[in-house]
Amino acid sequence: MKNFLAVAILIASAIQPTGLYADEGMWTFDNPPRKQWKERYNFDPSQAWLDHVRLASVRLNDGGSGAFVSATGLLMTNQHVASGQLQKVSTKEKDYTRDGFYAATQADELKCPDLEVNVLVSYEDMSRRVQGAVKPGISDKEANEQRKSEIAKIEKESTDKTGLRSEVVTLYSGGEYWLYGFKKYTDIRLVFAAEEQIGFFGGDYDNFTYPRYDLDVAFFRVYENGQPAKTEYFKWSASGAADKEFVVLPGNPGSTNRLLTVAQLHYQREVGNPLQMKVWTSRRDALARFAERGAEQARRAGPASRSFENSIKRLIGQQEGLRNPRMMAKKEAEEKALRDEIARRPELQKGYGGAWDEIAAAYRDYPEMARRIAFSTLTPSRVDLFGTPFGNPISRQATIAAAIVRYADETRKPNNQRYGEFRDSNLESFRFSLLSRAPIYPDMEEHLLAAWLEEAQKTLGANDPFVRAALAGSTPAAAAKRAVSGTRLADVDARKALIEGGADAVAKSDDPMIVLARNVEPVTRELRAWLEEKIQSVETSAGQKLAEARFAVYGKSVYPDATFSLRLSYGRVLGYEEDTTLVPYKTTFYGLYDRARSFDEKPPYDLPKRYREGKDKLDLSTPLNFVYTADTIGGNSGSPVINRNAEIVGLNFDSNIQKLPNRYWHVEENEGGRAVAVHSAAIIEALKKLYGAEKLVSEILGH
Amino acid sequence: MKNFLAVAILIASAIQPTGLYADEGMWTFDNPPRKQWKERYNFDPSQAWLDHVRLASVRLNDGGSGAFVSATGLLMTNQHVASGQLQKVSTKEKDYTRDGFYAATQADELKCPDLEVNVLVSYEDMSRRVQGAVKPGISDKEANEQRKSEIAKIEKESTDKTGLRSEVVTLYSGGEYWLYGFKKYTDIRLVFAAEEQIGFFGGDYDNFTYPRYDLDVAFFRVYENGQPAKTEYFKWSASGAADKEFVVLPGNPGSTNRLLTVAQLHYQREVGNPLQMKVWTSRRDALARFAERGAEQARRAGPASRSFENSIKRLIGQQEGLRNPRMMAKKEAEEKALRDEIARRPELQKGYGGAWDEIAAAYRDYPEMARRIAFSTLTPSRVDLFGTPFGNPISRQATIAAAIVRYADETRKPNNQRYGEFRDSNLESFRFSLLSRAPIYPDMEEHLLAAWLEEAQKTLGANDPFVRAALAGSTPAAAAKRAVSGTRLADVDARKALIEGGADAVAKSDDPMIVLARNVEPVTRELRAWLEEKIQSVETSAGQKLAEARFAVYGKSVYPDATFSLRLSYGRVLGYEEDTTLVPYKTTFYGLYDRARSFDEKPPYDLPKRYREGKDKLDLSTPLNFVYTADTIGGNSGSPVINRNAEIVGLNFDSNIQKLPNRYWHVEENEGGRAVAVHSAAIIEALKKLYGAEKLVSEILGH
Repeated sequence: MKNFLAVAILIASAIQPTGLYADEGMWTFDNPPRKQWKERYNFDPSQAWLDHVRLASVRLNDGGSGAFVSATGLLMTNQHVASGQLQKVSTKEKDYTRDGFYAATQADELKCPDLEVNVLVSYEDMSRRVQGAVKPGISDKEANEQRKSEIAKIEKESTDKTGLRSEVVTLYSGGEYWLYGFKKYTDIRLVFAAEEQIGFFGGDYDNFTYPRYDLDVAFFRVYENGQPAKTEYFKWSASGAADKEFVVLPGNPGSTNRLLTVAQLHYQREVGNPLQMKVWTSRRDALARFAERGAEQARRAGPASRSFENSIKRLIGQQEGLRNPRMMAKKEAEEKALRDEIARRPELQKGYGGAWDEIAAAYRDYPEMARRIAFSTLTPSRVDLFGTPFGNPISRQATIAAAIVRYADETRKPNNQRYGEFRDSNLESFRFSLLSRAPIYPDMEEHLLAAWLEEAQKTLGANDPFVRAALAGSTPAAAAKRAVSGTRLADVDARKALIEGGADAVAKSDDPMIVLARNVEPVTRELRAWLEEKIQSVETSAGQKLAEARFAVYGKSVYPDATFSLRLSYGRVLGYEEDTTLVPYKTTFYGLYDRARSFDEKPPYDLPKRYREGKDKLDLSTPLNFVYTADTIGGNSGSPVINRNAEIVGLNFDSNIQKLPNRYWHVEENEGGRAVAVHSAAIIEALKKLYGAEKLVSEILGH
Repeated sequence: MKNFLAVAILIASAIQPTGLYADEGMWTFDNPPRKQWKERYNFDPSQAWLDHVRLASVRLNDGGSGAFVSATGLLMTNQHVASGQLQKVSTKEKDYTRDGFYAATQADELKCPDLEVNVLVSYEDMSRRVQGAVKPGISDKEANEQRKSEIAKIEKESTDKTGLRSEVVTLYSGGEYWLYGFKKYTDIRLVFAAEEQIGFFGGDYDNFTYPRYDLDVAFFRVYENGQPAKTEYFKWSASGAADKEFVVLPGNPGSTNRLLTVAQLHYQREVGNPLQMKVWTSRRDALARFAERGAEQARRAGPASRSFENSIKRLIGQQEGLRNPRMMAKKEAEEKALRDEIARRPELQKGYGGAWDEIAAAYRDYPEMARRIAFSTLTPSRVDLFGTPFGNPISRQATIAAAIVRYADETRKPNNQRYGEFRDSNLESFRFSLLSRAPIYPDMEEHLLAAWLEEAQKTLGANDPFVRAALAGSTPAAAAKRAVSGTRLADVDARKALIEGGADAVAKSDDPMIVLARNVEPVTRELRAWLEEKIQSVETSAGQKLAEARFAVYGKSVYPDATFSLRLSYGRVLGYEEDTTLVPYKTTFYGLYDRARSFDEKPPYDLPKRYREGKDKLDLSTPLNFVYTADTIGGNSGSPVINRNAEIVGLNFDSNIQKLPNRYWHVEENEGGRAVAVHSAAIIEALKKLYGAEKLVSEILGH
């Protein structure tokens, strides 16, 4: 019943009606939305402003964004972005996820085992070079290989020349290629984390909910050569976010699919999303069963459980969007308008007019293969991706084994023929992650691996090639037990030995986890080849045509889909209407205590002791969270919310439920979609009054 | 998106899943839901318990319910139920609606001009007598007259014998007739009222909203012979409403339409509700234009404006229900099930099977007449009723004039042939209301009367009989000016003289308001006759058949539609799921301050001075409002919420938006429909700490 009263109720005169601005887009730094900024907000920043913002913004390779907030490497992000590292530095005795953490001195800061942080220091347009490398008249598959080869070359040259982590980023579905150079930090230490119970107050229920009352904040410090790194940084706003204020959000939105064709959206709705849901719910349920064994098991399963609940809830919201006939009709109308315009112009029709049908044709065989592709792996991530060592592994050791086996195969090939993640430019980061000393819990690994293999067997059948290769005649439980109990991969030196021993050492290894990974590797490779040839190469070729068609019709007034690289979003701080009432632009600490007491402080609405007992120390009217219209998505977690002076007014950590379909299209301001942030004032108030973190506050405020 | 995650999200273990109880029904005291109470809540009250509850419960004839809370006539109800009287005892200088009121001593209590309070002291089944009075084989119209005549006789006999206000109440659409005897109080004095801004915090936006933060409370004292009346009363619970607690709600639900046939529901959806909306929005808009003239005009228009906003919002919610295909399909399935069952049993089919078609046939001509019926009156109430002097008059003087003209015509007839409201048993209450000394504002009367006549002219056309009779050749503005500027009806003695002068005095009167009322009376009477003959008599005859059919199939396990007479509702205190999160069973004062601060205290989220400045005196964790599953509707405002010991745990004042379609059917517990109450603890906390009303608190708590 959202907004059904919008026409029937007069807006109270003291509260302005929401406008119809579209604060849309996740814009690259080479193409900021200057026109919109100028027209809507009278904002016209200098290049120095843009450079400053870019250099003070970071990407955390655990999957999130952050901001430098002092000249000596202090980095602010969300508690939930930090949660993977928090769990890795915690033990049964010291649970920093539960209890929070504060290092009163630099000596107390805790080194993170495998966190890498990137700062975008250079960018260069390589579209002509990559697109020009494709010879005319060849197949999509060959074109794909030629592009990949050229990309590998560019990245290698850049790494050799600059020493930067160099990535060619594909934008506009292949319409543009940009070489991004990242300064990379790997010595990252934990300075502060709020208790999970306040970072994630209300748990999964209140996730994607607003009004909201979370202090989802953590601080790291970035070191270089054993010393705090000297960093460009954001100053802190004295007052924080105000009603209707214009804000900018630099950050790394993970992935959107706004340039998908209607045929691709139908595939997502009918096949892709339901399959993704099946994978995630089966993995969540396996974690839940493990967590039931006891408190320590629940602690170990915690971050992954939270992550899956989050993903599932987001997926449901996205799928609701695809199922909404009104929203889909709008998407169909947009596609039709572009196709009609192309058809009217023969020169465009000739070059680009067939792209939609090419994609539709390619997708015809996809549903049949999709289940195999989703389950035929030891390292499932999103169902359409392979090989990322990040995210929530089923078993860290299985992930390590798969990575070692693949590394051995790939690094024998010339650089430009490898899988992207094994190109020379990525190997340093790959090794950093592979050789992490983060703890491994064999009981959890065995439980989850067995559950995964069982699910694969149930879904694909006993005669499926992956299932046969993984089980080798035994049961899922037995196969998991054999692999986990016999493996030596918990030992970092054992991993190093295999990597350094090369293909031969890997081929000869009798480590049962390596054996398992070796057995399934051919199946995984075959499916990846199918996916690249039949789907991805067509998507890239057709995507480039669609991008060029769009540029031809609309100019570069559009922004590319998100790619977990640095972008600028913007908007204004703004409440909205829901059902028949108003949702305020901000919440306060009063609301935190109201919500806790309203549930008699039963979980997930219980408060950390510090908050329960420290209530009277706080000014309860301090703003706690707020909402704004900026276009964000997962990956933007931890993005600073800044004002026109590039001062921090908040810390982005979530979206409301109305906004979730924005994977596929921008959710309009009057549809109630909003991003949610921690207010800057709440961070200072809590650090000072509840955590006694005066020193940290002084550093932030620059006193 | 309500509840769309219900299947996807595991309920947090500490919070119990909502059950599927149906705490349905507004039960008469002769037929309490003993079976459900016993089975679901192990509650089996004595007859003494029921009698006690009945005698401590009251009906306020302004439209609402209340409860005695001391042995000396202290009566608790909502501030919004009291608001009509508050406005009548306020002046430009002393605005008790805005500022609230507290009489520290009995001498300070303010006498209300025209509030009548009824207590149900006796009830007797008269079904056989009324139904038996109808001779077989006559027309619906004749049957209707015979029933009405018998009802008049019963009421007269009772009044003469008992001195009680005696009403024959029609239940189950004519399935039963009960003689209710009310003890009547008319000397009612104001003891306490909260400021409207806290009684109605969040204004129309937060009306029908939950979570909610309103102290919607007022106290009157009932006097008899100039002394506080000795009354049966409810004790106060020490702890107030708790999570999952069983509660009972005695009160006077105004009107439901749950026994309507599908044909009648279609009429409501397509014709009745849109027409009602037109009437109410035009009247609201006229009030808004008047209020714009200044602060004093806004004060005068206040209660009626609030009442129309409330009615409109409720109507929208009801209409949403009728437009919901899933809900209507359920209703259609229910009707089909009963019709099929009747059809299977020849003896039932013969007697009752035709009733649905009779109603459908009668309704065929209704749409055409409905607009005339709605607008051809000087005293519009609901569009399908005439003649009630209550509610929000267009002009009090026009209402008085119409009542006098009608009184003169009706009282010439024998008692059993009169309109119901002029039967002898009702005349004392009628005179009390007619001779009220409540203030009259001629500027407002003229403005609203002109607006109403203009709307009638626009809707019905210049040649319509009512429009011609009302305007008599002039414009709406001129007609209104002539009537209001010339009338002497503001003088109570002038009214008395006309009433006492009888038909002759009324016929000869040259008072221009009386002339206006006389002119339109024939049109109004003609339409009322049409409605009674063509619609209501068919509804009653067919309704009796349907009721008997229902009794035959289901037994008396059903409850009658609401009739603004005393009923028992019940349920349990219970939160619910909304969107993807949990809504708590209660709120606290923390939440009040959060919501005010979240909007920077902009109206309608500003706080009364007392609350702004007295915050630190309050225990903010005190429960403020709570929700529960009881079946309620407008008229239940002011009902006490009591526990199994008949102690007050709360004060009912609203429903949430999910519950509004319950005019037509019971909204299930898992659909999130809830009644909303002020928590008993909040009343005590505020009276003590903010209002210094220690004496009132002592009386309530019995110290």
